Amino acid sequence: MRTVIGVMGGGVADEATRALAYEVGALIAAEGWVLLNGGRDCGVMAASAAGAASAGGLVVGVLPDDDFSGVAAGVDIAIPTGMGDARNVINILASHVVIALPGGAGTLSEVAHALKAGRPVVVVGWDPGEALRAAGGSRLTRVDSAADAIAAAKRFLGEPRARSRVTH
Amino acid sequence: MRTVIGVMGGGVADEATRALAYEVGALIAAEGWVLLNGGRDCGVMAASAAGAASAGGLVVGVLPDDDFSGVAAGVDIAIPTGMGDARNVINILASHVVIALPGGAGTLSEVAHALKAGRPVVVVGWDPGEALRAAGGSRLTRVDSAADAIAAAKRFLGEPRARSRVTH
Amino acid sequence: MRTVIGVMGGGVADEATRALAYEVGALIAAEGWVLLNGGRDCGVMAASAAGAASAGGLVVGVLPDDDFSGVAAGVDIAIPTGMGDARNVINILASHVVIALPGGAGTLSEVAHALKAGRPVVVVGWDPGEALRAAGGSRLTRVDSAADAIAAAKRFLGEPRARSRVTH
Amino acid sequence: MRTVIGVMGGGVADEATRALAYEVGALIAAEGWVLLNGGRDCGVMAASAAGAASAGGLVVGVLPDDDFSGVAAGVDIAIPTGMGDARNVINILASHVVIALPGGAGTLSEVAHALKAGRPVVVVGWDPGEALRAAGGSRLTRVDSAADAIAAAKRFLGEPRARSRVTH
Repeated sequence: MRTVIGVMGGGVADEATRALAYEVGALIAAEGWVLLNGGRDCGVMAASAAGAASAGGLVVGVLPDDDFSGVAAGVDIAIPTGMGDARNVINILASHVVIALPGGAGTLSEVAHALKAGRPVVVVGWDPGEALRAAGGSRLTRVDSAADAIAAAKRFLGEPRARSRVTH
Repeated sequence: MRTVIGVMGGGVADEATRALAYEVGALIAAEGWVLLNGGRDCGVMAASAAGAASAGGLVVGVLPDDDFSGVAAGVDIAIPTGMGDARNVINILASHVVIALPGGAGTLSEVAHALKAGRPVVVVGWDPGEALRAAGGSRLTRVDSAADAIAAAKRFLGEPRARSRVTH
Repeated sequence: MRTVIGVMGGGVADEATRALAYEVGALIAAEGWVLLNGGRDCGVMAASAAGAASAGGLVVGVLPDDDFSGVAAGVDIAIPTGMGDARNVINILASHVVIALPGGAGTLSEVAHALKAGRPVVVVGWDPGEALRAAGGSRLTRVDSAADAIAAAKRFLGEPRARSRVTH
Repeated sequence: MRTVIGVMGGGVADEATRALAYEVGALIAAEGWVLLNGGRDCGVMAASAAGAASAGGLVVGVLPDDDFSGVAAGVDIAIPTGMGDARNVINILASHVVIALPGGAGTLSEVAHALKAGRPVVVVGWDPGEALRAAGGSRLTRVDSAADAIAAAKRFLGEPRARSRVTH
């Protein structure tokens, strides 16, 4: 089974965030990991997919819509879900580690779901706030660069597999 | 169509939070609104259902599991989903206004999904953090008592229906 | 907890089917049961909701879309899911007994999911085919009238609660 | 974007069905297509994954559970969903063509969802019944061997992309 790293972040993103997403994607591919994201042709999704594709990586896009339209160029395997934002839960469940770039409410929902499900989260270049940091404890770490995000993901992958689901 | 108010909050909750949830539930029922929550027999779910039931209100519980077990005593209509935390998305989509009591990662995911979907959020007695407050803008308000939560919900209900879904 | 009877059937339905759906809805309400359906303003959904409403019953509509638009007139509590046809699974999990009127692929998916999840199915006035009948065994029964459908639902409600989920 | 072929069928399967699933999986891999299935370590899922793996193919498993346990040996990319049978909808939405081997209620739900969503279905070695055949029309075809299933899938892939979602 391949190691899958989820890359989350805004569907609308400024140039610096897109550049960061591209770099994260390229580094994930260089590690031989599969990159999984929300699959749409915009923002962090498109940029991280392009980065991974540029480095020959495999990209899975889990789409909110029920067809294959609107998928980002670098996506190899599109997974339409027809479930709207409920697909955010799948994004994080399918990731061994989640790397969260700057985003809005959707990205915050993914950080929250990841922590609830016991998936480790690497937050790159922003602050999800005290409440999410407290919910994450040692399962959430903050870094400032793509290289540090990859290093943090490696550390999490070396730990025992995500604790079992918290049911409260 | 009945007005539905979602009450979110921790599955584990201290006595003060459970008392607040009970009071919010009773006041929702007194307004003639339907109370919707996550349906489980613990924490804010059980306490808010009990409060609404004490005032003769109707309670809908949207359960993460695929059967009717583990439902809170005050729930009139149980909706098992078998979808785990993806049911959090349904919790907020089915609510005209979301009232969020203190909770953990699950509650934070619900606040985030509500803001993404354009549902107004009344946060009672805690701080979801700068990132979620920024994502919410005027669609998120913070209050400190059950009575103020009801007043805030009324103001939101008087506004034009939730803006259309933000797709980024 | 209230008894919930799911009424499934085509979003497009001929006059005879709509009349049957209306009668089934009215009889469900007369029993004091909650009627649950797919909530949309068409076909069996609209007709069964109207029938239940005519008899003072409570109607829950579990919608495929993520907002409250397009809901049938008789629905009291709308549950938008934003999950498209995945909401069919919720329709049946939330029903103590499923009554299936004539329909197409969507209705067939609901009969199949009901049998998989151990919910009893009353098929009224049509034949779901040998494969589904075989999958259902004694948990699927066929009748020809609204009155017989109610009688069959009563028999199923008197049996021990649905067997645990089959996981293959 | 890679072509994805969904292989559905029983979690419990006799030896002939497992042999058929293995052969279908191997032929899908030989075409350079990605095989997608329900990912669990049993029945048609395990056999088709093993067949594809034996031919060097890429296998995606969309799991009903919320973790990576219980995944079949040949699966390269596991997608836990935590959504139980609602993941059946994702199985078919993510497939350009669905190949359905003998199965029970779960497989029948997938055939039904595929037809509802406009995905073509190749039924191999069994009869889903008159109701599903009628719902499928020319989008459902029946064949008797793995080789014929691949030929039918090729024909469907050559047709204009699946018609837009039917909303009734």
